[in-house]
Amino acid sequence: MFYVDKRLQFPVRVETPNPLFARALQQAIGGVEGEIRVAMQYFFQACGARGDPKFRDLLMNTAAEELGHIEMLATAVALNLEGAPLSMQEEASADPVAGAILGGINLKNLLSAGMSAMPVDSDGVPFDMSHIYASGNIAADMGANVAAESTGRVLAVRLSNMTNDPGMKEMLSYLIARDTMHQNQWLAALEELGGNEEVFPIPNSFPQTDENQDFNYTFLGFQNDGSEPVQGRWSEGPSIDGNDAFSSRPMEPMGDVPNLGRAAEGSGAQAEQL
Amino acid sequence: MFYVDKRLQFPVRVETPNPLFARALQQAIGGVEGEIRVAMQYFFQACGARGDPKFRDLLMNTAAEELGHIEMLATAVALNLEGAPLSMQEEASADPVAGAILGGINLKNLLSAGMSAMPVDSDGVPFDMSHIYASGNIAADMGANVAAESTGRVLAVRLSNMTNDPGMKEMLSYLIARDTMHQNQWLAALEELGGNEEVFPIPNSFPQTDENQDFNYTFLGFQNDGSEPVQGRWSEGPSIDGNDAFSSRPMEPMGDVPNLGRAAEGSGAQAEQL
Amino acid sequence: MFYVDKRLQFPVRVETPNPLFARALQQAIGGVEGEIRVAMQYFFQACGARGDPKFRDLLMNTAAEELGHIEMLATAVALNLEGAPLSMQEEASADPVAGAILGGINLKNLLSAGMSAMPVDSDGVPFDMSHIYASGNIAADMGANVAAESTGRVLAVRLSNMTNDPGMKEMLSYLIARDTMHQNQWLAALEELGGNEEVFPIPNSFPQTDENQDFNYTFLGFQNDGSEPVQGRWSEGPSIDGNDAFSSRPMEPMGDVPNLGRAAEGSGAQAEQL
Amino acid sequence: MFYVDKRLQFPVRVETPNPLFARALQQAIGGVEGEIRVAMQYFFQACGARGDPKFRDLLMNTAAEELGHIEMLATAVALNLEGAPLSMQEEASADPVAGAILGGINLKNLLSAGMSAMPVDSDGVPFDMSHIYASGNIAADMGANVAAESTGRVLAVRLSNMTNDPGMKEMLSYLIARDTMHQNQWLAALEELGGNEEVFPIPNSFPQTDENQDFNYTFLGFQNDGSEPVQGRWSEGPSIDGNDAFSSRPMEPMGDVPNLGRAAEGSGAQAEQL
Amino acid sequence: MFYVDKRLQFPVRVETPNPLFARALQQAIGGVEGEIRVAMQYFFQACGARGDPKFRDLLMNTAAEELGHIEMLATAVALNLEGAPLSMQEEASADPVAGAILGGINLKNLLSAGMSAMPVDSDGVPFDMSHIYASGNIAADMGANVAAESTGRVLAVRLSNMTNDPGMKEMLSYLIARDTMHQNQWLAALEELGGNEEVFPIPNSFPQTDENQDFNYTFLGFQNDGSEPVQGRWSEGPSIDGNDAFSSRPMEPMGDVPNLGRAAEGSGAQAEQL
Amino acid sequence: MFYVDKRLQFPVRVETPNPLFARALQQAIGGVEGEIRVAMQYFFQACGARGDPKFRDLLMNTAAEELGHIEMLATAVALNLEGAPLSMQEEASADPVAGAILGGINLKNLLSAGMSAMPVDSDGVPFDMSHIYASGNIAADMGANVAAESTGRVLAVRLSNMTNDPGMKEMLSYLIARDTMHQNQWLAALEELGGNEEVFPIPNSFPQTDENQDFNYTFLGFQNDGSEPVQGRWSEGPSIDGNDAFSSRPMEPMGDVPNLGRAAEGSGAQAEQL
Repeated sequence: MFYVDKRLQFPVRVETPNPLFARALQQAIGGVEGEIRVAMQYFFQACGARGDPKFRDLLMNTAAEELGHIEMLATAVALNLEGAPLSMQEEASADPVAGAILGGINLKNLLSAGMSAMPVDSDGVPFDMSHIYASGNIAADMGANVAAESTGRVLAVRLSNMTNDPGMKEMLSYLIARDTMHQNQWLAALEELGGNEEVFPIPNSFPQTDENQDFNYTFLGFQNDGSEPVQGRWSEGPSIDGNDAFSSRPMEPMGDVPNLGRAAEGSGAQAEQL
Repeated sequence: MFYVDKRLQFPVRVETPNPLFARALQQAIGGVEGEIRVAMQYFFQACGARGDPKFRDLLMNTAAEELGHIEMLATAVALNLEGAPLSMQEEASADPVAGAILGGINLKNLLSAGMSAMPVDSDGVPFDMSHIYASGNIAADMGANVAAESTGRVLAVRLSNMTNDPGMKEMLSYLIARDTMHQNQWLAALEELGGNEEVFPIPNSFPQTDENQDFNYTFLGFQNDGSEPVQGRWSEGPSIDGNDAFSSRPMEPMGDVPNLGRAAEGSGAQAEQL
Repeated sequence: MFYVDKRLQFPVRVETPNPLFARALQQAIGGVEGEIRVAMQYFFQACGARGDPKFRDLLMNTAAEELGHIEMLATAVALNLEGAPLSMQEEASADPVAGAILGGINLKNLLSAGMSAMPVDSDGVPFDMSHIYASGNIAADMGANVAAESTGRVLAVRLSNMTNDPGMKEMLSYLIARDTMHQNQWLAALEELGGNEEVFPIPNSFPQTDENQDFNYTFLGFQNDGSEPVQGRWSEGPSIDGNDAFSSRPMEPMGDVPNLGRAAEGSGAQAEQL
Repeated sequence: MFYVDKRLQFPVRVETPNPLFARALQQAIGGVEGEIRVAMQYFFQACGARGDPKFRDLLMNTAAEELGHIEMLATAVALNLEGAPLSMQEEASADPVAGAILGGINLKNLLSAGMSAMPVDSDGVPFDMSHIYASGNIAADMGANVAAESTGRVLAVRLSNMTNDPGMKEMLSYLIARDTMHQNQWLAALEELGGNEEVFPIPNSFPQTDENQDFNYTFLGFQNDGSEPVQGRWSEGPSIDGNDAFSSRPMEPMGDVPNLGRAAEGSGAQAEQL
Repeated sequence: MFYVDKRLQFPVRVETPNPLFARALQQAIGGVEGEIRVAMQYFFQACGARGDPKFRDLLMNTAAEELGHIEMLATAVALNLEGAPLSMQEEASADPVAGAILGGINLKNLLSAGMSAMPVDSDGVPFDMSHIYASGNIAADMGANVAAESTGRVLAVRLSNMTNDPGMKEMLSYLIARDTMHQNQWLAALEELGGNEEVFPIPNSFPQTDENQDFNYTFLGFQNDGSEPVQGRWSEGPSIDGNDAFSSRPMEPMGDVPNLGRAAEGSGAQAEQL
Repeated sequence: MFYVDKRLQFPVRVETPNPLFARALQQAIGGVEGEIRVAMQYFFQACGARGDPKFRDLLMNTAAEELGHIEMLATAVALNLEGAPLSMQEEASADPVAGAILGGINLKNLLSAGMSAMPVDSDGVPFDMSHIYASGNIAADMGANVAAESTGRVLAVRLSNMTNDPGMKEMLSYLIARDTMHQNQWLAALEELGGNEEVFPIPNSFPQTDENQDFNYTFLGFQNDGSEPVQGRWSEGPSIDGNDAFSSRPMEPMGDVPNLGRAAEGSGAQAEQL
């Protein structure tokens, strides 16, 4: 279960409110790389964790951390929206700057939320919980978390590059640092699960003897001219999971032309299909 | 640009059509772990790839491969739907088996698609292209791809465990093998980008001196009783990126109680908030 | 503006309630081929109709008709849900029929709506208003309407084939008839706009001299072996719009390999991309 | 069933077209606080109303009213879009005003709808019919309607504050008045159902003796320091439903640490979880 | 900021796992009436609360409570999924019970989540954060919360009626009790804001002299025959907000036939519309 | 299965990058009229095609073509985003032009994609695969394709009218030409299926004797005053399918007032409804 402290995890201050930057910050709340995503992802992974209970703890603690990050960002959005114009000039030409600001923000931040944050991205699209990856496979989950923190830190860096406000710079410096830790943290969890050679291929509980042995370590090219595909670490040398060696070759069809035959009577097809 | 061959990439045959299994296979087409996702993800990553052009090639070739996997699975769904009942008994009690089948499938496969596959998941939810992660950061993209192939292979294994049909087993054995390769392939790409120590933290172009130095390698605990958080590889030893050492500690609030003050005149708040 | 009459447009009666059929009927309410779609599509097309006002009238009248169809279907869903079990046996094995029924319906019809209809499809997915095609081009709109009524009638036929209930058969016989009329009605509107030769290509207000003259009446093949594409009415003879003659040929790339160059400083890419 | 009158429910005129205001008005059409929502919510509540038929009539009449409001707003959007630029300057710097306007509108209003209204919100997000709350419980429905009209009137007030156009002011003055009535109307319906003491807790058909007697009138605090939660009308005095007295206290866990055990064989987990 | 305790807020135990009931419970997690909705709604309302800070505290504490409810329900879903079949018989007729169970569950709970809970509803539709109503108007928010808890308790009662499992009955008895309190709690907050006469119409900061005085307390009928609309508390007597008296009458159009004129050159319309 | 060629189907060049135009182009990628839609629609129609296999070939070839169009447009978006500002001025007033540009683009193109294209529309809304119409009825599919290419060409024309960039004009001239061909191509397929008199009403496999004979060729008016509905080709003369003659008349209710009776015990209704 969860508890709250009234105070913020880290100070949030805005020296010069910037409604356009409020819009950008919304991506870090409700974007697919944002904090709702990681908070809820770790939460659901924790709730469904089977096996060693330490992973449940690890995940639930970080879920709690991320909830506090949403709170910080929501505060930052509201503070940046201070000063956004609440009315429109009859003719935009009379005041292009105000027009640009009003046109440049997510109008829902004004119209739906009264100058506050919303669980939407920087273009006003609501967050969709299908982005919560919690697979029941602990290694797949850790990999999804590395990926989430990677795009999360890329986003935070872009936001930091976008602003000169010292308060916002400071807040983002903290969030970027936490993303550094979280990338490392989930990588460390993968190492604890045995590292690449033990973890991959995910799931490691399926006997590889049951997978097609001709195609499990071959990089396939699909170039129209049948040429050799682009070479790299993926086309030669030992596989990353250590179970075989990479090779590569152009692919050709092994199946037939599919034919579903005639449509069934009563299936709503045209008579010509029956 | 793209070309087609009329033949399938790999043989698809169904010995005993099973409409419930058709529903399960839909997850591999239109689920978030499915083939539309990877096909389109690699495609958009390729289209936006900047830097070394070999990554564009690598991605676009595998996008082409995945398009062929969608085709295989769509064929498999249609073949498994053969024999699904097209009518309902007036009273389900008269024929519980038919009732269970009809109730157990995605009705849209019948009602919308006439016994064919759709770009929806196993519960009939359409695929949403927000799941296409293409960040403009090549390492973040590779990580997202490892994650996608990990949940993809977990799904394919679950599907394989669910069926005894020899044709479906064979098809899934191929798809599982390809997921093995693809996990290794994207891991190999990360190795080509320098491996963990060069790649992380993503993005590696942001100077770490600009991130908060007190919190970038510390595992934080958020337990109500202030106890030390769960220990593991994430709490001690060198960080995975090799840039520092892990530590851990319970977290406490560093910010103040946030206060947005009074609502603005004309902002649609209650008078008590003004 | 709109008015109501308390009575239904057409009688709705159910002799033997069938909760599974209630689920199927939901597709005709909230499916993409359903009545909400056409009601709202005609409504928004009417609201945005520019040019001859008779199209606004035509559309708004039929929007009113379709609203009455939603009402009929919602009544049919509620009547079919009568008798659905409200409780589950502890062990499904004790009563497979009840289990099949309860498992086979959209649970939201019970849990969210208390045995009533919802604006969702037959798999419980809510209708999404992005399916309202209202383009501002009256001919494109009429074509979208023909398409909507075509899939709508296909759906109604499938539903009719699925049931033996005399009341439901009678209601669907009416709805199918109306779909026949509506297909003809929108085709008639296209004829009034001049028929294929005047209407196409849509929009007919763009000078065809400004479109690429080498590719506007040629069926292009994209087969890997460079073979001639499949022949038919589309590959020879006069074009349907009467403006040229069809031809066909295999396609080859005319562009270069795209190259976006290096990533910009500060864009959150990996250092290797800069 | 429904009928139309060609005329609008209330005059809609725009003195000075303002494309940015057209964008804002879209929120009142396709936003979650908008008119599609209430029109469809009342419609589906009416279709599923069981018990005293007067509620069906009440709801369906107001559904008809709201359909007319959508029509008014769609007309207002189209009129405000008049004069929106249809082309872009090569360099935005050449005409910042036009750039601000074009950048500030929902581009879909131009690109998809040809300068007409769409069923989307002010950021271009399509309305999703999952927002139609029709619970099968008449009191819950009335409460949802009060809530919908409250956010609806807040939105209309914000829109009115945003514009100086006399025609738009007049239209919004009418819509705001109707929201006043509708808030009162649904509150009156709750009063007709017995007022707070009869209506709550919803549903009033569940015996309160079957709910946990230790926690049904206690305000629980979840503050980390175990302090007494914030006091107010919710923490002392008779409960609003008149069935008990409020109290308050800090909460503590009553359950155990959850443990799902090991993962099942064949469930796609990692071997370490089995 | 947030903290966790490893223990559950209230005991969760399942005597007889029932995978169909797991599906039903998903509605209480990811349905629009579910716990993610209230947890996130109170959280965002708290983050955007302006005016008296006690409302922020009130909201954030209850947000913490609801997070614990999600955790309880997620645990209950996982426990009920124990024993769900992981494979399908080749022919469903061989085992209708297993077929009914497998067909009756959300397949994503198996295929995507490995027998764990997901943030989806009982038909597998992911939760969409557009359902988080946080308007910036504290009274509108409280009303939305009463509505959310009303449908929430209706849902919990339906779930309780659906099961005989003593553990599940006990857990739901707790959740139903909390919904009773929460309905009362938000009603108490409205009383603290002044009760119906002070609170309504929402927002109370807009001068009612600026709304249309002819239509703000009149129940309008939209019946085709022009008959007097259904009478009730809403058609006579003092208005609930105490500011006027109700009346009623049939409505007639006050506006003209709308006419958008010809389409603009270059707007992509048909030539006939220009 | 699919193959790639590294080169683009047609040259893509941008003389003067325009980030606002990049936003507009996104509609042609991820809008409902865009290229993802047609690529995937033809692909799924091909995969589910029953009857004469030439339609499968026809569809799959054009699916391949459309994939190449997405690639072209994605390249065009990335090239137009070159030069978009990556940072914001502290005060927008200092540089209204940059503010207008930054406010006017889809921020996700910067924040999520690093100045690359995404599968979203011009307002940043992700493409939703429910727009893939593949009905299992070949004629309904062809009609849906005509409709898709009609709105597609309308969109391309609007985009062409919006830009003066010679490179973009040239690319759009090609895409508009292909839409001309594709409209004609699908119309030709309908002609090959027999033309209007053989094809309609869709599906032509349902015996028209089973549809209500009183309403299948009558244009119904729903005007409140009972007046004759608007006359046109749809109200007199032979029906377009040649099976009957059109007529018209005002409609009146034929059903009763629907009455669902009392709510069921245990269904979560208010006691007053039972």
